[in-house]
Formats: sequence, structure tokens, C-alpha cells
Amino acid sequence: MQKALEQLKKIDAEITALEGAQAVLEWDQQVYMPERGVHARSEQTAGLAAIVHQKNTDPVIGDLLDKLGVSDENPLGSADLEDDDRRLVREIHRDFQRATRLPADLVSKIARVTSIAQSVWAEARRKSQFSLFQPHLEEIVKLSLEVAERLGYEAHPYDALVDQYEPEMTTAEIARVFRELREALVPLVRDIAAARQIDNSVLLKAFPVDRQEAFSRATLEALQFDMSRGRLDRSVHPFTTSLGPDDVRLTTRYDEHFFPTALFGTIHEAGHGLYELGFSRRFRGTRLASGASLGIHESMSRFWENVVGRSRAFWHHFYPVMKAEFPDQLSGVDLESFYRAINRVEPSLIRVEADEVTYSLHIILRFELERMLIGGELRVADLPHAWREQSQDLLGIVPDSDANGVLQDIHWSGGAIGYFPTYALGNVYGLQFTSRMRTDIPAMDNLLRQGDLVPVKAWLDEHIHSVGRSRTPGELCEEVTGEPMSAQPFIDYLTRKYTDIYDL
Amino acid sequence: MQKALEQLKKIDAEITALEGAQAVLEWDQQVYMPERGVHARSEQTAGLAAIVHQKNTDPVIGDLLDKLGVSDENPLGSADLEDDDRRLVREIHRDFQRATRLPADLVSKIARVTSIAQSVWAEARRKSQFSLFQPHLEEIVKLSLEVAERLGYEAHPYDALVDQYEPEMTTAEIARVFRELREALVPLVRDIAAARQIDNSVLLKAFPVDRQEAFSRATLEALQFDMSRGRLDRSVHPFTTSLGPDDVRLTTRYDEHFFPTALFGTIHEAGHGLYELGFSRRFRGTRLASGASLGIHESMSRFWENVVGRSRAFWHHFYPVMKAEFPDQLSGVDLESFYRAINRVEPSLIRVEADEVTYSLHIILRFELERMLIGGELRVADLPHAWREQSQDLLGIVPDSDANGVLQDIHWSGGAIGYFPTYALGNVYGLQFTSRMRTDIPAMDNLLRQGDLVPVKAWLDEHIHSVGRSRTPGELCEEVTGEPMSAQPFIDYLTRKYTDIYDL
Repeated sequence: MQKALEQLKKIDAEITALEGAQAVLEWDQQVYMPERGVHARSEQTAGLAAIVHQKNTDPVIGDLLDKLGVSDENPLGSADLEDDDRRLVREIHRDFQRATRLPADLVSKIARVTSIAQSVWAEARRKSQFSLFQPHLEEIVKLSLEVAERLGYEAHPYDALVDQYEPEMTTAEIARVFRELREALVPLVRDIAAARQIDNSVLLKAFPVDRQEAFSRATLEALQFDMSRGRLDRSVHPFTTSLGPDDVRLTTRYDEHFFPTALFGTIHEAGHGLYELGFSRRFRGTRLASGASLGIHESMSRFWENVVGRSRAFWHHFYPVMKAEFPDQLSGVDLESFYRAINRVEPSLIRVEADEVTYSLHIILRFELERMLIGGELRVADLPHAWREQSQDLLGIVPDSDANGVLQDIHWSGGAIGYFPTYALGNVYGLQFTSRMRTDIPAMDNLLRQGDLVPVKAWLDEHIHSVGRSRTPGELCEEVTGEPMSAQPFIDYLTRKYTDIYDL
Repeated sequence: MQKALEQLKKIDAEITALEGAQAVLEWDQQVYMPERGVHARSEQTAGLAAIVHQKNTDPVIGDLLDKLGVSDENPLGSADLEDDDRRLVREIHRDFQRATRLPADLVSKIARVTSIAQSVWAEARRKSQFSLFQPHLEEIVKLSLEVAERLGYEAHPYDALVDQYEPEMTTAEIARVFRELREALVPLVRDIAAARQIDNSVLLKAFPVDRQEAFSRATLEALQFDMSRGRLDRSVHPFTTSLGPDDVRLTTRYDEHFFPTALFGTIHEAGHGLYELGFSRRFRGTRLASGASLGIHESMSRFWENVVGRSRAFWHHFYPVMKAEFPDQLSGVDLESFYRAINRVEPSLIRVEADEVTYSLHIILRFELERMLIGGELRVADLPHAWREQSQDLLGIVPDSDANGVLQDIHWSGGAIGYFPTYALGNVYGLQFTSRMRTDIPAMDNLLRQGDLVPVKAWLDEHIHSVGRSRTPGELCEEVTGEPMSAQPFIDYLTRKYTDIYDL
């Protein structure tokens, strides 16, 4: 059995290395590749993907897992294995099942269909004409149903789709948490809308891009992001990717007349980056050195961006630092005004521009529509209408066009149905973790006020980062907080914070 | 047979794509990888190299080549094949022979030995202590002899080593050309040393690095290097690499107090880059879309750097442009003084700092020593002494230390024996090509004086670049110039140019 384990680990290390190589190619493509390099690059990524797929579906993996006693009924394998190894074989089994259950011709059909759908979507959004995109989305919904059938599920086909991004999460569980969220947030947003509006004109002043970049770098340093183990570059769509355990790359973008894009974008990506840099050394070179799920990943980025980065305590220390860098732009703006400006709440049409309170409502909208589409309760043709209805119910506003409504996000055109919920789950997990952190570090706010972020990062390293993919999101949540997923801490946090800011 | 050809082309395309992926990883490692990313990167490159090696040695290739009638006796295969296809199968056969003749354990032994040797070499050079490096170089010479035996040769084991970098070149051929060079250059250098020295103090003025970089980019544009198909970045050791037919990356380095490093370095790399961007579209995705040899590659980089970039005609147009960018630094320096300064000749100890005249002598020195080492006529222990003797004979100066002598270059520590001659062959080929170009474009100097580099690049595209690897260096030389390799055009060029500059 020891021999089978060694052999499986060798395969795992090979796959991990090749996936790292894929990440290098993708990062370069987004960040530095010259415009016309795209054709050869797609040959290279396709060639590498074919090899990785072949390795991921090698029947030898199935044989080795058998020898180690791993099965659907017993995913952790033989009790004789060490605990870390049992966690590892579970994840190898999970990936192997997924890779082998989807036939190669289905996978390549999805690649073909979504490749076309993405360019049609871009055109449809430009023209604000949903009918162009409709037949492609119909095909994608059909293919997603086939994926769900192939992967298998118990209660709802949407379960199988969500599970790809958020292991072991179910539609019912999301629905339960989102119902709590909706019931709390809709009235909160209504109350805020009725309150006196905040002046956020300071956010619109001119902040030269090169100085924004220098400030982003200084912020990364304050957040303890280690530049000998990573980089910050620019890209059109900000992202974080790990090219190796000591090579994590962040990107951001700069808007001279709206500095929060870069500043909070950088803090957000740093949250992802610190997670990727924090996996236990024990897991190096294995697939356990990755995030537990997209939701957990997002809990880390949103924790830093919002819970820390938009807190009064953080800016108590950092606002004087920022003011020294941008004295003209910030002159006459006191800490409290700045703090309110960066926390202004306003229902808006576009998800990626949404504030901390309304953001989850944008996600709930998408979840409701996806669930109905996949459940057969909503036709693609009726989607724009359903979008407008949900938008009215959740946000109290209705998009003026499909471009600002149902066509705003790229996700569906790329075949990613079941992905959106993870964004809001990140908020939910994040505040559950924060509650526990506040118990463990009672002086947390005082530390932030002094600019001391060391204990906070150390807590995350110990309880979340280091754990990596050795726990499912559900297990992690239970182990860290002692409770299953719950929206209450997030609701309490928002209610308290915005009751104060808006004097409700 | 058509089917066999299609199958072989498919394999070739797969290998080409994966080699492109390797190039991405290597470029990133040299240019942007954070310091501590090196461990994971070496796993990734090793993983990819193992796959490429496996593909390169797949016995299926041998079977397909057989079916196409390709053999050592008939490298172009069946006469029924199209001409381009015959050239392609010849190169596939060549690479397959090389890959299969070197056993895997020999290849990995060389990788191990040279990996250690490189770090020992760096230490030995730092301490200027050859004895530290000696046992490692002895091992490398032994392994190189084994490589030569495995690869096979007719007259001299060094032939087999050279052939890796310069296909079908022989030791005897190099010796013939280098003898002519030596006999002409040694007296020329002596005459120059006796002439009145040139004032090159303008080269040592302060040129701010960011403005040097902007000027390098402007120079690339003038050289018709297409930035939608490439990039210029910084690295410690300047290089050019092709990540795909429309993705060629150059690097350079900047020295505030010696602008020629970046300026002529950029022009040199642009020469490599224009070659890589100029392969015929017919060859895309095949291994014919690469340089014919290192010598031919170097002929292109040195043509642009020296024949164009250090010519009076080129600066007639570009010196006013440069003066407008750097008015303070260049004030009081007229065109003629500038032209002489960038062409100053002075025997020096370090190859990479050598001028256009003495450079080839540094190469001849290394060739003589390598040939004797591999021929068993010189022991590694006697190398420092032999170096000093040759240096005295060729350059008239003797290194003050091994660091500035036998230990100055990294090549041997990496196992690259037989590589050095290609640098000087580049000079030789380059001036043969130039002679033909001057016949085809009689107005060449006038065009350069007007800053019009279009016809020169078009000539190179047609006669050299587009041909790629479809011809051996020998075939290319014959086809372009109608003659075999000859040092005479290079000797004539240097004699004429420096007789004028130094008023000999």
C-alpha cells in the first residue's frame, strides 16, 4: 500500500508541476503577451491541457486509489493511511471522478460552444441585444444539464454544477442562507436609501496612476505580502494566480479618476494572494496546496478588502499615511468623511461596481435565475424579463438595457453556471471566520488602529491558509467556527456597521 | 505515404507547441519571476522537458521516417515528397537521431554534473581560483567525449560537438577560416594599437536609464521590429527568445554610465528578433520556423549591431535624432567623433566587452583550446597556462587573473563545448551576406544615410529570414552568396573600415 501511495504522490506532483506551467502561460497571456502572440499561445495551452487531461484520467490513478481503499463510499481510503494522506487521496479521487465522468467529446464540445458564445456575448452586450446571445445560452444550459447528469447529484441538477466550484455545497443549503440574507439586506438597503446621502466626491479626484501604483505596492507591504514570493502587475481584468508555492502573481488596474478601483482591488487580490502563499509546507507540490473552494478563497479576499480595508480602525492608522502621499487630493477631507465615502451604499445595476451591502443581492438574483434555468422552471427566452423582475424586487431598480442587466457578466458565456453563489458565500464564510477571530484576538480593532496587521494574518495563516484543500469548505467552517454555514454573522456585521455610518 | 507525412507533421506541431511553452517558462524565469519562485519553476521545466524528450524519442517517429524513405544516406526522404516536406523530414530525422543516440542516463548525468559545475564555476570565478573548477571541467570534458562518441563523427570528436550548434560544420572547416582570420586580424590589431588613440569619453557620460530605455524602443521601431509581435524587457543577461511565430521577446540591460551596453545590445538582440519574426508563413508551427544555426543567427544580430549600427551611414541619419534626445550629453561631440568613439578598438581581456575587430580573436583562442582539450592534446590542468599563452599570441596581453582569463565565461560549466566558434562564424557569414546585399542594393549606404532601413530588412527577409531551418548553414551560404564559407569579405570589411578610422 505504501508503494501505491508513493506512486500516486508522484503522479500528483507531476500534474501539479504541469498545472503550474499552465498558470505561467495564462498569466503571461493576460499580462505581457504581445497582441499577436495569441494564436501560438492557444496552441501551447491546448497542447499542455491535452497532456494534463491525459494524466488526470490515467486509469493507473483508478487502480492506485482502489489499492488504497478509496471509493465513493469511503473517500478517505484505508484507515491505515496517515491523516494528510487520507485528505490527499480524497481530493485525487474527487478530481479523478470528475475528469473521467465527463467524456472527452463533451468537454471539447463545451470548449467549442463557449469559445463562440463568448465572442457572441461580447457583441450582444455591445449592441445590448439579448436575442443574439439567446441561442448560444440555450445550448450552454443544455450542455450544463448534460454535465450535471454525468457528474451525478442527489436532489437538484444545480447541485452538481455548484459542486464544481464549492465542493459538497448544495442548492438547498445556498437557498437557505440566501433567504436569510435577502430578508435582512432588502430592508437594510431600503433604510439606507431613505437616509441622508454620503458625499463621496473625494473618490472622484485625480490621483496620478504612477503614484497610485506606488501606494498599492506600499499597501501590499503593509499587508505582509512578500514580494520575494510574488509580484503585482497590471491587467485589464484583475486576478490572482499561483505559479508555484513561492510565486503568486496579483494584478490590478488603475483609474486616475477613481482610485478605489486600484486600492481596494489590490487589497482584494492580496487576500487571495496571502491565501495562496499560506498553504502548509507539508502540502507543497501536492494538490492540497490550493484553496478549499472558490467561496473560501473569496472569504479571504473580501475579508481584507472589506472587513479590514473598509474599516474605521484600519484607516485610523492608514489615512494619515495616505494623506502624506496625496496631500492635495485629500486636503480638507477628515478621516470620518473618508471612511464614509469609501463605504457609501447605493443600489446600482452593475455587480462589479456594487458596494458591500448590495453586492450579495446581485448574487442572489443570479442564483435564483440559474437555479430556475437548470431546474427547467425558466426558459432562456424569458431571462431578460425575469432579470428585471428580480432586480426590482432585490435592488429596487430596473436595468435600462440588457447590456446593464442580463448581459453584464461574462460567466454564462464561458459555461460557468453555478459559479456566482461562491462570491456571496465568501461574504458569509468571511464574517463567520471574523467572529471567531475576534474571540481569539479581542484587541483586533486596537491592533488595526495601530497599523499592526501581523496577528490578523497569523490567525488566518494558522486557521485558514495553511489548511489549504485538506478540508472541504463545510469541514473548514465547522472546525474553525464550531458551526455550520450561517449568514447571521455577516448580517450582524452589516447591520451594525451601516446603522452607525448612516445613523439609522 | 501522405498519411505518414500528416502524422509526422502532427507530432512536429505538438512538439513545437510544447517547446513554445518551455520558452514562456524560461523567459518568465529570466525576466519577471520572483526570486523564490525558482524551486517550483525547476519542477515545471523538468516536467515539461521530460514530456518533450519522450515525444522527441517516440519510436513512432522512426517508423514514420522509414515509411517516408528517410535515412542517414537519404536524409531528404522519398523524391515523391514536396520540397518543403523533404526539408522538414530531414530536420526531424536529424533531431530524432540526436535525441535517440544520447541515452537518457547520459543526458541526466550531464544535467546533474553541469548543475553543480555552474555553481562551482561562479565561486571559482569569484575567488579567481581555477583549481576549484578543474575537477568539474575534467568531468565535463569526459562527458563531452562520450557525447561525441554517441553522436558519431568522421574526422575529429570535436566535429560532433560543433554539429550540435552549427549543423554539418567541421573542425577542419572552422580551422581553415579561423587561420585566415587570425593571419589578417593580428597584424591589423597591432597596427591599430600603434596608431593615435581615439577619445571615447562621450560613451562614459551619464545617460539616465529611463531615457535610454525610451531611445532603445525608438531604435527598435526604426529597425522595423513590430511591437505587436514582440516585447523589450530588462534582464541581467540580455537574450532573445521566440515564444511563438508572432511573439518574440528581446531583453537588454542598462548602464547609466555606458550607454553602448543598452543601445548596441538592443540593436544586436533586434537582429536576432527580426530573424525569428521573419520565417516564412509556410513553416509556421513546424521546426523549420527556427534559425538555420547559431552561426547564422549571430550573423543577423552582428549585421545589425556592427555593419549597420556602427556605420557612419547609419549615424548620419540617427545621430541628429539621438542628439535631440540627449542634447546635454552629446553637446560639442560631432558625428565623426561619435562614430569613432563607438568604433574604438583596444585589445582587452574580457570577450563580452570586446570591439568588432578583436572579438573574433577571443573566439579563436577558445576554439584552439577546446579543439585540443577534446582531441586529447591538452589537459584541463594545463588550461590556465595555455590560455595565457594564446592570449599573448592573439591579443598581445595576458590576463592578470584566472577570473579575467580562463574562468570568464559560463559556457563550459554548462557543458557547452563547441559553441564558441558560432560567434565568430556569425561575423564571417554576416559579411558574406552583406557583400551580396551590396550587389543587390547598390544604394545601400545612401539609404542608411537617409534613415531608410526598409530595403535592407526586406532583403534579409527574402534571402535569410524566411528560409529558416529549411537550409543548412552551408546550403544557405552557397545559395545566397554562390560561394562556400569564406573569411575574406569580413577581413576586407574590417581592413577598409579601420584603415579609414585609424588613418592607417
